[in-house]
Amino acid sequence: MNFVDLIIKKRNKLELTTDEINYFVKAVTNKSVPDYQISAMLMAICINSLTERETSDLTMAMTYSGKTIDLRSIPGFKIDKHSTGGVADTTTLILAPLTASLGLPVIKMSGRGLGYTGGTLDKLESIPGFNVNISSENAIKQVKEHSIVIMGQTEDLAPADKYLYALRDVTGTVDSIPLIASSIMSKKLADGADGIVLDIKCGRGAFTKTLKDARALANEMIKLGRSLNKKVTALITNMDEPLGMNIGNSVEVIEAIEVLKGNVKGPLKEVSLALGAEMLTMGGIAPDTHTALQMLEENISNHKGLYKFADLIALQGGNPAVIDNYSLFPPRMCKAAIISDEVGYVQEIDALMIGKASSTTGAGRKTKDDEIDYGAGIMLKRKVGDKVAKGEILARVFASDSKKCETACSLVHKAIKIGSKPPRRKPLIYEIIK
Amino acid sequence: MNFVDLIIKKRNKLELTTDEINYFVKAVTNKSVPDYQISAMLMAICINSLTERETSDLTMAMTYSGKTIDLRSIPGFKIDKHSTGGVADTTTLILAPLTASLGLPVIKMSGRGLGYTGGTLDKLESIPGFNVNISSENAIKQVKEHSIVIMGQTEDLAPADKYLYALRDVTGTVDSIPLIASSIMSKKLADGADGIVLDIKCGRGAFTKTLKDARALANEMIKLGRSLNKKVTALITNMDEPLGMNIGNSVEVIEAIEVLKGNVKGPLKEVSLALGAEMLTMGGIAPDTHTALQMLEENISNHKGLYKFADLIALQGGNPAVIDNYSLFPPRMCKAAIISDEVGYVQEIDALMIGKASSTTGAGRKTKDDEIDYGAGIMLKRKVGDKVAKGEILARVFASDSKKCETACSLVHKAIKIGSKPPRRKPLIYEIIK
Repeated sequence: MNFVDLIIKKRNKLELTTDEINYFVKAVTNKSVPDYQISAMLMAICINSLTERETSDLTMAMTYSGKTIDLRSIPGFKIDKHSTGGVADTTTLILAPLTASLGLPVIKMSGRGLGYTGGTLDKLESIPGFNVNISSENAIKQVKEHSIVIMGQTEDLAPADKYLYALRDVTGTVDSIPLIASSIMSKKLADGADGIVLDIKCGRGAFTKTLKDARALANEMIKLGRSLNKKVTALITNMDEPLGMNIGNSVEVIEAIEVLKGNVKGPLKEVSLALGAEMLTMGGIAPDTHTALQMLEENISNHKGLYKFADLIALQGGNPAVIDNYSLFPPRMCKAAIISDEVGYVQEIDALMIGKASSTTGAGRKTKDDEIDYGAGIMLKRKVGDKVAKGEILARVFASDSKKCETACSLVHKAIKIGSKPPRRKPLIYEIIK
Repeated sequence: MNFVDLIIKKRNKLELTTDEINYFVKAVTNKSVPDYQISAMLMAICINSLTERETSDLTMAMTYSGKTIDLRSIPGFKIDKHSTGGVADTTTLILAPLTASLGLPVIKMSGRGLGYTGGTLDKLESIPGFNVNISSENAIKQVKEHSIVIMGQTEDLAPADKYLYALRDVTGTVDSIPLIASSIMSKKLADGADGIVLDIKCGRGAFTKTLKDARALANEMIKLGRSLNKKVTALITNMDEPLGMNIGNSVEVIEAIEVLKGNVKGPLKEVSLALGAEMLTMGGIAPDTHTALQMLEENISNHKGLYKFADLIALQGGNPAVIDNYSLFPPRMCKAAIISDEVGYVQEIDALMIGKASSTTGAGRKTKDDEIDYGAGIMLKRKVGDKVAKGEILARVFASDSKKCETACSLVHKAIKIGSKPPRRKPLIYEIIK
């Protein structure tokens, strides 16, 4: 097979055979074709798309490009949850301990933050001592005994996807629904999931800006799941403004703990529970969504979710005392407040700009090798629709020096728009597609 | 400017600005962006095309990516001729001395053969002693004194085009009309031409297989020429069967000499004279095509074209005695004949397959570093439409060993199809577009 012929075939909008897709993925894995040929193929795919069959073949080929994890020794239906990436989106830290406390085996492989979105692993590492580097053997053992583990991806998981993802990032070929769908799904299949609950973010701070695009991605994932015999449920949720109030690492862990304690309501809790409910019904723990939501609420009230989170921290080497003593988290150094200079209602809080502001404080990475400042971040004090008075605090910013603090402040200030009339409210959860 | 943003812009079918195109070409010339980004851009251009303005900007930027040659010190209108590449297409060796003998200043930069097409430089180098490596200063001097030079491209001519061309070849992005047009035109502008006569080959052995594609390329080139204030005339000519009877290097020079001697008629002569006539009228040497053709015929009859060719050979270090003594060419070693096993009419002679057969004899290169066997090649004895008897010789093959000879023979045999009825004739010159 000649790789240039395959590029030309896709350039001419023809369908690649299973053998040809396997050849492509093998060549990527072995590094036997040069990057400039892979990127030409990626651009041809990006513009001319892939058929359902091709997407399914690509997913399988990437799944088996490295080691896969066999979870069959763990009883029950194994469900993974995946978010397409948002700001103040710390649902995993809430739903993982809550669903585990209700008997769902939770083996969650998470990622790190890059650009304006945060990463679950970075957030967990803000807990002193917490270790995310766990072998698949130890992870399976921990899930069997304690029904929960949150860990980094093993090195050899879907290496073809890892390589293609990095190349897409620098060749303008990220925005392709079949490529996004197969990338997510290949990792989820490699990590042994039987089903997947997807949180497809939609809006200003998300990859899919419109409901139409979000629906297209959801449907692609569901079709892909069907072709691979995996259950997929997709929630399309609003990402115009940040989901929670806190953006950063330790501050997001603290907000998750507050939700688990029952102290905090609002969109972050609502989306976490909606996702958790789908996991419980898909996993056969709850008969329907309504009952599932009641069970989750109950395990907030009785603190079983909170204790499960404390268990998780202790099991993975962290200090569970952080749950009651937030001063054990890394210190928040330089503080500044954003003060409202108007009277009115919050019209919008631009999630993308807030994400960038958070990255500016030191809470995020601009390149893969940047170090994270775990104490840095932003705490919003108001949400869209809230009434504000002049001189009121809208947000606080934490950073290690005054320059970062100032830059972030000016971004946060710009991100929050105030107007005289209450804004039209958009739904938080647009759709649930099964 | 961020190059990935430019890739995304073109991926989304948006028009790049002049500054953005200049940035792209500069980045290619300086090698300041990696190949995998350039190839992603090339694929986006290949699929989403370029506007007329973008193509013109790209051409200019490539022209000025290196040194340009200033021909203004040579009196008269300087015309270049370019063929999009065919088999047995040795028109340059005929029309260059003929038009020069009529007073047109001919400074022709030619290329080498690659794949199944031959190259004028390789053909000339089959003449013992012939030197194609001439500096632009010496070339200008030679044209002023003798009105003819045929030379290789100078090293620093349109380097951005050279780089992009090599990358297109290995990334499936050759088939793009704006990229082909700008590539040809940038070199022609850099070598100082005032006008260009194009031979757009159409058919089995050409890049453009259909008249529709050939017309599209012709029109693109003409529009491009207009936007750059250069005269362009395009001939669309048949390339279903090889143009001449001989395919190789010394054998093609011999056929050109035979045409110049007036001994050979047929398609090669006809296309050479049609192109030459357009050059003479564009250059103001002849008032119209009809007169130009008469002038060319006259300089065949009186051997002035032949003597100009002998001059050229002598001027560039070759032995002009080859004109009367073909045994001075490199020897043709192993010979074989292809014998007809049928009675009937030649239905088709597949130019592409004959080109590949010629390459197999050693007359062509498979990779850029292959050495050429100047004596190797093919001599066809019949053309499409000719009546053949059983046992008649259809072609002869020359190669340095019997294995190459056999492989080439079997290809030539396959390329020549014989049937019982005379085939429908196609035009030799489809269209002349000015």
